[in-house]
Amino acid sequence: MNAVPENALQERANLDPELTRPLPGSRKVYLGDATRGLQVPMREIAQSATHERGAPKPNAAVYVYDTSGPYTDGAQQVDVRAGLAPLRTPWILARNDTEALSLPSADWTRRRGADAALQSVRFPTDTNPRRARAGANVTQMHYARQGIVTPEMEFIAIRENLNLAAWRDVSPRGARVHAGETHGAVMPREITPEFVRDEVARGRAIIPNNINHPESEPMIIGRNFLVKINSNIGNSAVSSSIEEEIEKMVWSTRWGADTVMDLSTGRNIHETREWIIRNSPVPIGTVPIYQALEKVDGKAEELTWEIFRDTLIEQAEQGVDYFTIHAGVRLPYIPMTARRVTGIVSRGGSILAKWCLSHHRENFLYTHFEDICEIMRAYDVAFSLGDGLRPGSIADANDEAQFAELETLGELTQIAWRHEVQVMIEGPGHVPLHMIKENMDRQLEVCHEAPFYTLGPLTTDIAPGYDHITSAIGAAMIGWFGTAMLCYVTPKEHLGLPDKNDVRDGIIAYKIAAHAADLAKGHPAAQQRDNALSKARFEFRWEDQFNLGLDPQRAREFHDETLPKEGHKVAHFCSMCGPHFCSMKITQDVRAYAEARGIADAEAALADGMAEKAKEFQTAGGELYQPD
Amino acid sequence: MNAVPENALQERANLDPELTRPLPGSRKVYLGDATRGLQVPMREIAQSATHERGAPKPNAAVYVYDTSGPYTDGAQQVDVRAGLAPLRTPWILARNDTEALSLPSADWTRRRGADAALQSVRFPTDTNPRRARAGANVTQMHYARQGIVTPEMEFIAIRENLNLAAWRDVSPRGARVHAGETHGAVMPREITPEFVRDEVARGRAIIPNNINHPESEPMIIGRNFLVKINSNIGNSAVSSSIEEEIEKMVWSTRWGADTVMDLSTGRNIHETREWIIRNSPVPIGTVPIYQALEKVDGKAEELTWEIFRDTLIEQAEQGVDYFTIHAGVRLPYIPMTARRVTGIVSRGGSILAKWCLSHHRENFLYTHFEDICEIMRAYDVAFSLGDGLRPGSIADANDEAQFAELETLGELTQIAWRHEVQVMIEGPGHVPLHMIKENMDRQLEVCHEAPFYTLGPLTTDIAPGYDHITSAIGAAMIGWFGTAMLCYVTPKEHLGLPDKNDVRDGIIAYKIAAHAADLAKGHPAAQQRDNALSKARFEFRWEDQFNLGLDPQRAREFHDETLPKEGHKVAHFCSMCGPHFCSMKITQDVRAYAEARGIADAEAALADGMAEKAKEFQTAGGELYQPD
Repeated sequence: MNAVPENALQERANLDPELTRPLPGSRKVYLGDATRGLQVPMREIAQSATHERGAPKPNAAVYVYDTSGPYTDGAQQVDVRAGLAPLRTPWILARNDTEALSLPSADWTRRRGADAALQSVRFPTDTNPRRARAGANVTQMHYARQGIVTPEMEFIAIRENLNLAAWRDVSPRGARVHAGETHGAVMPREITPEFVRDEVARGRAIIPNNINHPESEPMIIGRNFLVKINSNIGNSAVSSSIEEEIEKMVWSTRWGADTVMDLSTGRNIHETREWIIRNSPVPIGTVPIYQALEKVDGKAEELTWEIFRDTLIEQAEQGVDYFTIHAGVRLPYIPMTARRVTGIVSRGGSILAKWCLSHHRENFLYTHFEDICEIMRAYDVAFSLGDGLRPGSIADANDEAQFAELETLGELTQIAWRHEVQVMIEGPGHVPLHMIKENMDRQLEVCHEAPFYTLGPLTTDIAPGYDHITSAIGAAMIGWFGTAMLCYVTPKEHLGLPDKNDVRDGIIAYKIAAHAADLAKGHPAAQQRDNALSKARFEFRWEDQFNLGLDPQRAREFHDETLPKEGHKVAHFCSMCGPHFCSMKITQDVRAYAEARGIADAEAALADGMAEKAKEFQTAGGELYQPD
Repeated sequence: MNAVPENALQERANLDPELTRPLPGSRKVYLGDATRGLQVPMREIAQSATHERGAPKPNAAVYVYDTSGPYTDGAQQVDVRAGLAPLRTPWILARNDTEALSLPSADWTRRRGADAALQSVRFPTDTNPRRARAGANVTQMHYARQGIVTPEMEFIAIRENLNLAAWRDVSPRGARVHAGETHGAVMPREITPEFVRDEVARGRAIIPNNINHPESEPMIIGRNFLVKINSNIGNSAVSSSIEEEIEKMVWSTRWGADTVMDLSTGRNIHETREWIIRNSPVPIGTVPIYQALEKVDGKAEELTWEIFRDTLIEQAEQGVDYFTIHAGVRLPYIPMTARRVTGIVSRGGSILAKWCLSHHRENFLYTHFEDICEIMRAYDVAFSLGDGLRPGSIADANDEAQFAELETLGELTQIAWRHEVQVMIEGPGHVPLHMIKENMDRQLEVCHEAPFYTLGPLTTDIAPGYDHITSAIGAAMIGWFGTAMLCYVTPKEHLGLPDKNDVRDGIIAYKIAAHAADLAKGHPAAQQRDNALSKARFEFRWEDQFNLGLDPQRAREFHDETLPKEGHKVAHFCSMCGPHFCSMKITQDVRAYAEARGIADAEAALADGMAEKAKEFQTAGGELYQPD
C-alpha cells in the first residue's frame, strides 16, 4: 500500500525541516527555575514597532503556550533514533516510590523483543520500564491528596498562566477583560501550584504522565484551565507507515495538539508505539482493545481478560499516558442501540458489544474494573473512560443508550478515585446545537465533575469532507460549557485516513474552538493574543498579523496570492478592498485628522459618556470639525 | 492586473461546464402549479437501494432546497449574453401598478449608456426599467398588509416546506423530531402561504425582489424560515474582471448562496452589476455608497445627497434587490469608536464617518432617510440597514458605539415600515461566544423583530486564513438564536480578495452553520437530510453518502485518495479504520447475528424499556447468545 519502507527512520536521525523549523517570527524560551529542572516552554513571537503618528513605539513580544517540544528549539537537534531527553526522570526518582524492572512484565513485550524478524522496525534504543514499588501508588492524584505539590504541578502552573507578568504592558487601547457568563467554570485570576494540586485532588483535573514517559512536558486537563485538544494518529491495515505516523505526531504538536492518541490498528502496533512515545513531548493516549483484537486476529469473541491485561501492562510499561477503556458498554445497554440510525459507531464499543453478545456475558472490562485500576496506579496511567455507545448521527443524539452508559461511567469514576487513579470521561459525537448543553450538564452531574473529553460534537451529518467544521462548531460550544479537552476531527472523517494536511486542518479548527472557549470562559490571558493580533491588523503590521495567528504560513500564502511583493507587507490595504475602500486606513485617516485638530479631547469626553459636557463641547467647538 | 479581457463573456454564450453541470446524482425538478407560473425548483438526489439482509429495499429520492437556478437544469441552456428568463414578469404585470420607463431615470445610467467606449464591457441586451405608478407602493410588505397573498408568497411556501409530503416515507429507523428549546423562533409545523404573508406584513420576514429583477426565484429571509446565507462577490481596484465575478455569482448559487452581494469597487461597477443581475437566480444586494464614492474619485468629503440619490435610482432600476444603507452611523456616535482597538471596520461606516467629521454634519443618509424610503418603495428594494460601527475585534465587541447605532437602526426600521418598505438589520462582526446572545436579544428588542443579518460573527481574532471557521462557529450559534441570514466569510478574510475556491469554502462553511441552526430551531424538514445521509453511511452506500452531502465532489475526492477503485464504493470499510475495525460493519454483523437467532424481539423488548420482561427473556434465552 505504501512506498515508504517501515524502517526508514532507522537510517536517518532527523525529521524533515518542514516539521521542525521554528514558526515564523518565533523562538523557544523557557520560564521557571532551571536549577530545579523547571523549564517551561513558551513560544515568543516578536513584534515590530508601531509607526503611526510620531516616533516608532515598540510592541512587546507575545508569549504563547507551546506544545511542540524540543523540535522547534533552534538550539536543540533531536535524533529520533534516541528519542527525547527524559526531563521528568529526576522528579520520578526523587519520589523514591518506583523501581526499574530488569525485564518487561508483559509477555507480549518479551515475545516481540525476542523476535529477530522485527529488528528492522524496532526502536533502536532500549529502556528499562519502571513500576511502583509493591504497595505504592504513584499517581498525581495520590500525591495531590497527600497535600504534595509535585514539580509537575509547579510546571503546569507556570505554563497555564501564559506568562501573565509579561503581558501586562501589552494591553492595547480599549482592551477589556470580559466578565461574561461562564458555564460551570471557576476561572481563577491566577493559576497557582496549590490550585493545580487542589483540582487534581478533587478529580476535577488530570495530569496524564506515565512514569514510563518521562520525556513528556507536564500538562493538565480540567475545565478550570485552558481548553486542550487531542489529535488522533495511527495507521490502519490499509494505509501508512511508522515514519508517517512519527511525522504526524511531530506535526500535530507543531500546530498545537496537547495530547496525541495513537490509534494504530495495522501492522507492528507495538513497535510503532515505542517510536512515538520515545519521541513525543506530549502525553500519548491509546485504546488498548485495538491491539488486543489484533492479537486474536480480529475475532472479537476470542478476546479474553488475560490477553487484555497483558496488553495493558505492555502499553503501561512503554509509557502510554492514558487508556481509553470502554467499561461502560454493558450487556443490557446493547439492545438499546437496536433502533438507532447508526447503531454503535465507536470502534471499541462495537468490538465489546460483539464480545458481550457472543458470550452473553457482562463486558469483561466492567467486571475487571478494579483489576484495571490496580494496573493503572502502578504506572500513573489515567483513565479515559470510553463512550462506546456515543451517537453516530444527529438522529441518535442524547438517547437512552448514550445516557445509560454515561451513568455507568460515573459509577466507575468513583471506583477509580477510590484507587486514586486519575479519570476523564469521553463524550460525543454527533449532537445538534440545542442538545449540546444537556451533555455537559449531565456529565458534570453523574460523573462528579471528572473532566469531559469530547469528540466534536458534530452538529450536522450532511457535510462529509468538512467535518472539521461541523464539529468545531459543537466543540467550541461544549468547550465553553466546560469540556476540558476536545478530540479533533479532520476533513477526512468518515471518508479515509487523514494525511498530514488533514491533520493540520483538523488541529487548527480545534485550536480555534478551544481558544474561542477560553475567551468565553474568561481565561485570564486568553484575550491578549486576540488584542495583539487585532492591533497589528489595524496598524497594517502584516508580518505581525501573520505571525501572531495560529497558522502564519497559510495567512502569508493567502495574502501573497494577490500581493506578493515585500513592499505590500507595509501597504495600508490588501486586495480585498483595495486602497480607497480600506476601512482601517480610512479610520486611521479620521483619527489623524481629528488628532491634528485637538479633537481627541472631545472624543475622550464623549467616549467617557459625559454626554452633556460633550454636547457643549460640540456646540462650542463646531469650527474644529470644518473640513480642510 | 488581470489577463482575462473584460469582455470575454461577450464572445461566448456559455459558462464553464464546471459551473453548470448538475451535481452528482441530482436532477432539477419543479413543484407547484406550472399553469400559474409556479415552478418551484428543487434538487432531487436519487438513492440506491439498501442491500442488507434479504431483498433490496429502495430508498426514496431526497429533495433539497436549490438556489442554483436554471444553470443546473440539464434541460436548459443559459446564454449569459441574454440573461435568465424573467419568470416573475407576468406576476408583476398582473398587479397593474407599475409602468415601463422609456428612459432610465438616473443621470449616471444615461451617461454610461451614451458612452461608446463602454461598448466592449456592456451587457448586450437592453431592458426597460419599471417603476411604481405615481402614488403606488409595489412592495411585498404593502401587499401583505393589504391581506394579499402574492404568487411570490405561494412560491416561498412551497420552497420552504422542502416537499414535506415526499419526505414522509423516507423516515429511517429511529428518526425523531427534536422538540428542543428554540430561541425566539416560532417554527410552524407547516409553512403556508398565509403564514408567509403574515410574517412579511408584521416585518418579521422580507422577500427581497425588485420589480426590475424578474429573473430571480422568490425567497424569504426571516427567523421562522430556513436560515439563509449570503455570499459576497465583486472586484476591487486591485483584482478581478467581470467574467470572474459572473462566475463567482453562478458558483455561489451552485453551492447554496441564497443571496449574493455585489461589492464591486473597481472599474465598470455599473456594467459589472448589469451582467450579474441579468444572470442571477437569487436576489442581489449592494452597498450603493461604494459606487457613489467612486463617482467622486474616492474623496468621501465630496459625497453629496444628490450623487447618492442618483446612485440609488440607477441601481434600483437595474434591479438590485436590497441596499445596505449605513444610516445609523450618526455623528455623535463616531467619537465612541476613538478608543477601540480596531476603530471602524465597515467600509461604508468609515466612509460616512469621514464625511460626517469632515463636514461636522449629521450623516446625510440619516437626514434623508424618508427620501430614501420613497425611492425603495417605487421598486420594492429592501433595506439592509448597515452596521457601520460593528466591532472589528473581540476587544470591541458589544460596545457603546455598536449598540448606539443598533438603537438608531431600530428607529429607522419603524420609519421604513410606515412607508411599507421591507427592512433587515445588519449585525456583527467579531464577538466572543459568551457575548453573542446579547446581540440577538437586543436586536429583537430594539429593532422590533425585523430580520437580523449578521457577518459571522467571528469568535476569535487569532486565525487569519481560517476565518470561515472562526465565524461559522458564531454564525451557527446566532442562527440558532434567531438570525435570519448569515453573511459568509471566506478563508481569505482580512488577507485578500477571495477566488473561486475560497467562495466554495466560505459557502460550505455557512451552509453547515445555517443547517446546524435549522436543526436546532426544529425546522420541520431539516433533519431528514441528516437522517438519509446517516442511513446511507451506516449501510455503506458510499455514492449516496457523497451525493447527499453539501459537497459531493470533495467527499468523493477525499474517499478516493486512499481507495480509488469503483469496487471500494461498496466496500464495508474505508481507509480510516480498515476492515477489522469498522464499527459500522461490526454493528451490522451483530445485528445480523442477533436477527438470525430471533434476538430482534429481545432487543425490541429491551429498547422499549420493558426491563423486567427483558430480564426474563435474557435469563430464559441465554443459550441464544452462545457464539457460533
